[in-house]
Formats: sequence, C-alpha cells, structure tokens
Amino acid sequence: TFSQKNHKVVLFPGHGIGPEISQAVCDIFSATKVPIDWEHHEIYTKPINEAGDLIKEESLNAVINYKWGLKGPFATPIGKGYRSLNVTMRKKLNLFANVRPCKSLAGVKTPYSNVDLVTIRENTEGEYSGLEHAVVPGVVENLKIISQPACENIARYAFEFARKNNRKKVVACHKAGVMKKGDGLFINTCKKISSEYPDIEYTQEQIDTVCMKLSKNPEVFDVMVMPNLYGDIVSDLCAGLIGGLGLTASGNISHTCAVYEAVHGTAPDIAGQNKANPTALLLSGVMMLKAMGLQKEGIAIEDAVTKTLSEGKFLTGDLGGKASTTDYTKAVIGHINL
Amino acid sequence: TFSQKNHKVVLFPGHGIGPEISQAVCDIFSATKVPIDWEHHEIYTKPINEAGDLIKEESLNAVINYKWGLKGPFATPIGKGYRSLNVTMRKKLNLFANVRPCKSLAGVKTPYSNVDLVTIRENTEGEYSGLEHAVVPGVVENLKIISQPACENIARYAFEFARKNNRKKVVACHKAGVMKKGDGLFINTCKKISSEYPDIEYTQEQIDTVCMKLSKNPEVFDVMVMPNLYGDIVSDLCAGLIGGLGLTASGNISHTCAVYEAVHGTAPDIAGQNKANPTALLLSGVMMLKAMGLQKEGIAIEDAVTKTLSEGKFLTGDLGGKASTTDYTKAVIGHINL
Ligand SMILES: CC(C)[C@H](C(=O)O)[C@@H](O)C(=O)O
Ligand SMILES: CC(C)[C@H](C(=O)O)[C@@H](O)C(=O)O
Repeated sequence: TFSQKNHKVVLFPGHGIGPEISQAVCDIFSATKVPIDWEHHEIYTKPINEAGDLIKEESLNAVINYKWGLKGPFATPIGKGYRSLNVTMRKKLNLFANVRPCKSLAGVKTPYSNVDLVTIRENTEGEYSGLEHAVVPGVVENLKIISQPACENIARYAFEFARKNNRKKVVACHKAGVMKKGDGLFINTCKKISSEYPDIEYTQEQIDTVCMKLSKNPEVFDVMVMPNLYGDIVSDLCAGLIGGLGLTASGNISHTCAVYEAVHGTAPDIAGQNKANPTALLLSGVMMLKAMGLQKEGIAIEDAVTKTLSEGKFLTGDLGGKASTTDYTKAVIGHINL
Repeated sequence: TFSQKNHKVVLFPGHGIGPEISQAVCDIFSATKVPIDWEHHEIYTKPINEAGDLIKEESLNAVINYKWGLKGPFATPIGKGYRSLNVTMRKKLNLFANVRPCKSLAGVKTPYSNVDLVTIRENTEGEYSGLEHAVVPGVVENLKIISQPACENIARYAFEFARKNNRKKVVACHKAGVMKKGDGLFINTCKKISSEYPDIEYTQEQIDTVCMKLSKNPEVFDVMVMPNLYGDIVSDLCAGLIGGLGLTASGNISHTCAVYEAVHGTAPDIAGQNKANPTALLLSGVMMLKAMGLQKEGIAIEDAVTKTLSEGKFLTGDLGGKASTTDYTKAVIGHINL
C-alpha cells in the first residue's frame, strides 16, 4: 500500500528442493498479503574464493542491511577446501542465538502428542570454534571455547524469549561435572542471569539426563538453553519427537539481524519433482514474520498449516500422503483467514 | 565345587540405594549358583588424597588382578577438589570401550516396542580429556582429543562385538562436517577398519541426524559406535526409549579387565527403604557373566527378569508397581530355571 514500506528480505532458495519450497513460501506469503519484497541471493556449491566461502560478501551485507534473511537447504560440497556455510554465516553476522521450537502438530502422528519445546542454542562457539590441529600425527586437538560474553548473551536471550512467549521454565543443559571450567562457566552465567527473571523457573540439568528425559517424557521441559554442540543434537532429537526436520522452524538471531532457515537436507532424490514438503521453511518464515511484528499474517499462515495438516487431505509423501508441493501450497492458501 | 575355581569379582556397592540393589544382585547370583566370590570395596564420598581421588589405589589394583568389577551408583561430592570417579577409573584401567545395550523389555510400556540398540562409546578421550583452562578471565578452552589408537581400539571393538553378537550393522556417529580433523580421524579410522569386516554393513551418520532418527524411528539402527561425549548422550537417549536408566546395563571394557555398572543415580529419596529397582545393576551383572563365559547362568537370570517384568505382579515403584526390592528379588529367583 501507499503508506506502508515493505520489508526487504534476502531469500536464499538453496539447492535440491530448495527452489520449489521457496516458491511455495513466496506464494503463500503473497496470498497472505505479507508486506515483503524478496531479494534472491545465491549459495554456491563450490568455494568462490581462497578462503573457501560458499556465499558472497555482498549477500552477507544484504542481510545486515535489510535485517532479514530466509534460507532453504543447500548442498555441502564434497571434499576439502570449503568453509561450512552455516558456521560462517553465524560467525560473520554474529547470529549468536539459534532458536528451534518443536510443537506437536495436529495431523502428524508420532508416539508423543504433547511436545512443546524450544531449544535455544548458543550459535557461535563451543566445539564449533574451527580451531583444531594435529599435535602429532594421529592425535587431534579441537578447542572447545566457552566465553562469558557468549554465555551472557544466550542466557539473557533465553529468559527474554521465555518471558515474551509466556513460557514458565528455562533449563540450562550442560556437562559441568566433566567440563568443570567451560560448562561450569556456562551454568554459572545462566544462574546469575536467572536471578533477574524471578518470574521464570530456572533449573540446570546434565545434557545426558536431558536427552534421557526427552525420549522418555518430553513434556517435563519447556525452554532449554545450551552450548552450541548440545543444541545441535537436542534440537534434532526434539524434531524427531514431532515428526522430523521437514516440519520444524529455525531462527538464527543477532542483535541487529536474523536468518531463518529450514534445517533439513536438499533431498536430491525428489528435487524438481514437485513432491517436497515446504512446511519447515514456511514455519521458519512465520517465525520471521512474528519477529517483524507481523503477528496477524504469521498467525494466519500458522493456522492454515495446522488446518491443512490436521485435515490430512493434501499431505506430501514424507507424511504418508500423495499431494504435490503445489497441491499442499494451494490447500494452505485456501485456509488463509485474514 | 571342588574342581572349579570361582571367579573373584570386586563389588562396589556404592551409596544411596547402591547397597540394597547390590544385595539383590548377590542374592539372585547365589540362587543361580553363579561361581563367583565377591570382594567388597568402598567408593568414598570425599576425596581421600591430594589428587582428589574417591577410590583407593588398592581397589583399582584389585580390579586389575581379578579382572572383574561390578559397581553400584555413587554420590558425587559437592564442590571442588575431587576427580570424577568414572573418568578416573576409565582412564587408569584403560577401560576404553563403554558398551550400553538397550532392548525393549516386555512388561515395560514405552512409545517404542522394538528397540534393540547397542551404544559403543569411546571411553577415554574426546571432551573428557580433563584438559581445560581459562585463556583470559572469562574465556575457557577445553581440549577435545581424538587419537588414532583410541579410534582403532573402539572401531575394532565395535565390529568384533557386532560379529560375536550376530548383529548386522555398525554406524559410526560423528560431526566431521564441523570437526573435520578430529571427528574426521574418527570416521576415517572406522571406515578403514570396516573393510576387515565385510560381513557387517557399515555406514556413517552425523550425530544430530542419529538423534533425530532415534527419537523418530529407533529401529533403523543396530550397533552404534562413537566418540566419548556423543556416547554419553546417545546411550541415555536410548535408555529413555526403553524406560530409563533403571533398566539398562553398562560395561566398561579394557583389553584385560572390565567394570560393569548401573548408570542411574543413588536415589537418596528412597534409599534404605527397600523400594529400589535392582534391574540395571542385575543386567550389568548378566553382561559380566556372559563375558566370563557363564552363558547358562547369564541367560537364566535374564530370562527370569523378563518373566518377572512381563508378569507384572512384582514391579517396583519406578515401574508403577508396589513391590519392594526384596519382593522383586524373590520373584526373579522364583523364575530362575537352570
Ligand atoms: C550443517 C551443520 C554445520 C549445522 C550445525 O551443526 O549447526 C546443522 O546441523 C544445523 O543444526 O544447523
Ligand atoms: C558421571 C559421568 C562422568 C558419566 C559420564 O559422563 O561418562 C555418566 O554420565 C556416564 O554416562 O557414565
């Protein structure tokens, strides 16, 4: 409209099924009249420079300028000489918080029906430092880094998230009995910051126990905050509980910009065949809309997804249905209620 | 009997419910006429020397001499100045392999009824090196160590285990996309050794994907081999799938000795009340019997446990029953069929 300026969003369609599911998201967003202009950027399948980057500097700058990015799945190059795209992006944009909600979806049958968990993962350090070397041939040292500022950032983010989203509990997951200094610093920092949030119940639990409880009775947890590697593992475990990565949203957040992404793979076996399920990317987009303040549009799309899935008429192959990507997309659009 | 020399086994009853469940195991073993002599050794609740040890040198030597140890749960001291008992034991005795089978138990209802997994965990290095320091205040570096010899040991152990136990598949779990050198060394070594076992199907899978699949459809895996920390997490996840740590056996294996253990806690709230479930320690003992070559006795006890649990008349509180530890113990003994 005349008076309202559209948000600009950097879209990385990615590879494999990436372009199809990105198209589905764009179509659903258009039908919902979301005030967004997309700017397409490429992820490369081969390193584009000596440093091994898979993305252009100008694409990262576009995310910084526009504040928003949405990213499909991408193919990791085979062999050596490249830098992990996700790790690079998270570090260069200081996307320090990775937020992955997992909530049971009506219409998707799993053994657990009351899952409602949010993994909040420190996204920049831990084992992901990229610092490793062979001390002598056959002995590799990898540096796991835990720093106070990163712990403070992620702890505060977790409590703020809990408060904003009306959640009651935050559990800090760790292995401080073994990594007394590193994971010790993490939980001590979380504990310190928890005192500023008396309205949120705070506990600490060992990461192995957390995973045992998640597979036994996942309803005991609410918001879970943890160092990088644990978050990688726990968020996938939680995704499994609600039906897999094809259904889960993810957001990588900095203080000034954010990149939302589908965490699943490129599914080369079905790419280009109009069979892929766009839900993960779509719900990641919904997370973005809510962060932009576009609650109405975000909720409308979320509700339409829930209706489409629980109706069960237009399910894609991964959910046991026979619908095409475009059938599913149309069904979601048909349920949009503004 | 006159002609047969009994095996000597070092028993660490431990703390909390440890003594009660150890007694249950001794009673069931006696009733099964297992040719074992127990030698009780203590785990301390406070450090006994400057190094912070919780166990006497002579106890470790006893394990080395007799070859066999069985260990109940123990209380970790509060505060600083102690060394983790498990980590110390594993390192000092070079208990390089941690074996944790998880098989659905008839009579214990869980979301999945066909779980039959074995986690084989490298038990001496990775993040458990104990090497950590603050580089500057507020920045901690922890060294994750991966060495070729340890990878070879654990890989070979996994394939030998698969072969001996008639299992068809081994999956190596890793995060080599991020820890290219360290986890890279791990999978490259596993792959190399897999070529000596053409009868076993070998695959590699990222640890996050493994956990997603385990919570979604755990029947896709069989034997899983992995570095230390992943094994800590995955074995607990698997335990959750079959009903929790109160039911799962664990063995720590070196080339010359082994310590079997219940991995659950000391349950101080019910300690001394004849309410604890001795199954985890008992099944750990059964693993030991089988390793000793006492198949007949081991299988007899295992079958008696299965019958007792599936009958459901004498279940302890953790399984929703009202039986005491001694009721359950008697029920198991009643089902022993030699
Ligand atoms: C691709 C990989 C580097 C990444 C990670 O480990 O963070 C992925 O698994 C994820 O969870 O986003
Ligand atoms: C007590 C702790 C050091 C130990 C570990 O992490 O190995 C425990 O969790 C286990 O799994 O045996």
